[in-house]
Amino acid sequence: MPMSIARVQKARAQARPKLVLAAQTSRSARPPRKAPIPSTHVRDCWPIVQLAHIDIPIVTERLAGIRHKILILSGKGGVGKSTFTSQLAFALASDENSEVGVVDIDVCGPSIPKIMGCEQEQVHPSGGGWSPVYIMDNLCVMSIGFMLPSPDEAVIWRGPKKNGIIKQFLKDVDWGSDERPLDYLLFDTPPGTSDEHLSIVQFLRNSNISGAVIVTTPQEVSLQDVRKEIDFCRKARIPILGVVENMAGFVCPHCHSESKIFYPTTGGAKAMCEELGIPLLGSIPLDPQIGKACDFGQSFIDINPSSPATKAYLSIIENINSLLDSPKSQ
Amino acid sequence: MPMSIARVQKARAQARPKLVLAAQTSRSARPPRKAPIPSTHVRDCWPIVQLAHIDIPIVTERLAGIRHKILILSGKGGVGKSTFTSQLAFALASDENSEVGVVDIDVCGPSIPKIMGCEQEQVHPSGGGWSPVYIMDNLCVMSIGFMLPSPDEAVIWRGPKKNGIIKQFLKDVDWGSDERPLDYLLFDTPPGTSDEHLSIVQFLRNSNISGAVIVTTPQEVSLQDVRKEIDFCRKARIPILGVVENMAGFVCPHCHSESKIFYPTTGGAKAMCEELGIPLLGSIPLDPQIGKACDFGQSFIDINPSSPATKAYLSIIENINSLLDSPKSQ
Repeated sequence: MPMSIARVQKARAQARPKLVLAAQTSRSARPPRKAPIPSTHVRDCWPIVQLAHIDIPIVTERLAGIRHKILILSGKGGVGKSTFTSQLAFALASDENSEVGVVDIDVCGPSIPKIMGCEQEQVHPSGGGWSPVYIMDNLCVMSIGFMLPSPDEAVIWRGPKKNGIIKQFLKDVDWGSDERPLDYLLFDTPPGTSDEHLSIVQFLRNSNISGAVIVTTPQEVSLQDVRKEIDFCRKARIPILGVVENMAGFVCPHCHSESKIFYPTTGGAKAMCEELGIPLLGSIPLDPQIGKACDFGQSFIDINPSSPATKAYLSIIENINSLLDSPKSQ
Repeated sequence: MPMSIARVQKARAQARPKLVLAAQTSRSARPPRKAPIPSTHVRDCWPIVQLAHIDIPIVTERLAGIRHKILILSGKGGVGKSTFTSQLAFALASDENSEVGVVDIDVCGPSIPKIMGCEQEQVHPSGGGWSPVYIMDNLCVMSIGFMLPSPDEAVIWRGPKKNGIIKQFLKDVDWGSDERPLDYLLFDTPPGTSDEHLSIVQFLRNSNISGAVIVTTPQEVSLQDVRKEIDFCRKARIPILGVVENMAGFVCPHCHSESKIFYPTTGGAKAMCEELGIPLLGSIPLDPQIGKACDFGQSFIDINPSSPATKAYLSIIENINSLLDSPKSQ
């Protein structure tokens, strides 16, 4: 079936008068309307998090020495959660007095090993449990990506298996000795509000989560999902450290004018944060070097110190540190 | 903790000699290495799809009259699956002789109602089952987004509840009368290879899926996840119609030079498709008007007929139609 623009235009023009919503449609075969399916039909399974779980005390004890546990969340995929997590980890680990860990709980799409330049590594058992992969002396990573026979192999898992591996990442991994416990443990999550999110909140119930950083892009389609994530955090009583707006504008390398690739039709993250009373931690402009650094497993802020995106990253990290150091978060 | 660029640079420079992988690290407290955790540890739950399910015959009968059932997949989130699904649906429905349906099975992040401009609608019961929302006389949509008390409310569901609603979308929705059955039913999926994907493949096991369109962006981090999705399709025996490369380049509206926002460090989708022997259906350039059209629930190709992105969309849709009309897919 050939389809030219002219043909589509003509067909759409003909179709235009029929652009009606269900209520007004004249489709003769359609039966008269009844009351809508009630929204109580979609009650959520939130109370499951409240239930006791035999492994919670073990996880609580294992993670007891870790000073800050930070969730990196987003509603929508592809907004830059893993990129932000990796850059935050690299920046925090640049202070050699800080011990930093990253857990990749995106079980079906683990991208942290690639982005942090350690995808060829494997996880080894030790006396204290599974040893995470160390990419610097004070920066370690755990991901299912280290355990796959090939990086192209899909992890085709339903919820219970995903929950099982997340539990193992929390209770079986040697997250550092008592003499030198982690200062920061960052959790990179998949998009949405499903099994992985419920499990992590359930297992960390008594572990005092420092807070969540929510990553978004400026367009309304992404902000809509962020509002759902904020609803999730509120229901789960996770403190929200703030929102990071990613891909906020693109500066053309040729003429240096800025374009809004993902247009903030409803005012972007700034307007949403004001409306909901949540801190906006900062906006990071789109820089093609960020994606490149991720493909090569490099620290973007390290190799591009003069980029406006590096300045934005560092300011956001400073904001997060101030919030973590404030008495409220202690 | 204040963090300046100079400080990070200095600290990173000091840290550099220690940038070692686990095998070489000198951390005295670390125990000697043992054999890695074997990859058989992460065996997948693929066989579950092979199991019989009491509802499969009901779904098979309900969808029997629908000519083409197309899955829109991606490994990574945020690559433009829902955007592509909506534009494909609008373009197919521009032929008034075609009946088109869209099912949004991204249960925790339903964006189809927003993108297709019908988010205020509700689902109503009728004699033949739940009536989907009609946005044109020959274009109908079903999404959990129509059933939420508020668009900001999170759907905090584990796998079984998600599977339940997907089953209802297949077996309880009135997808058109016998006299005028759907020509196309498009399934917009969440990223990954988990519950939603296993469920849809399980329920459509005997319904003759026409094929999957896999959407990606050009950078390696996204292509890596696409390879996983291809692995999933092969294991599930879903024919792959081809790959769509989205956000392939950005033409500055000020100086008209092209920039690669998501840099194809490994050759982009073209190189991957050649390597794996899969058709590349086409590349769509980044056009900020696409995101804007989605925020306003409009058909991008209809309101931007002269954009290079519209030409790319139409060529891809033509390619898909040729594949569907070829004897192999009948």
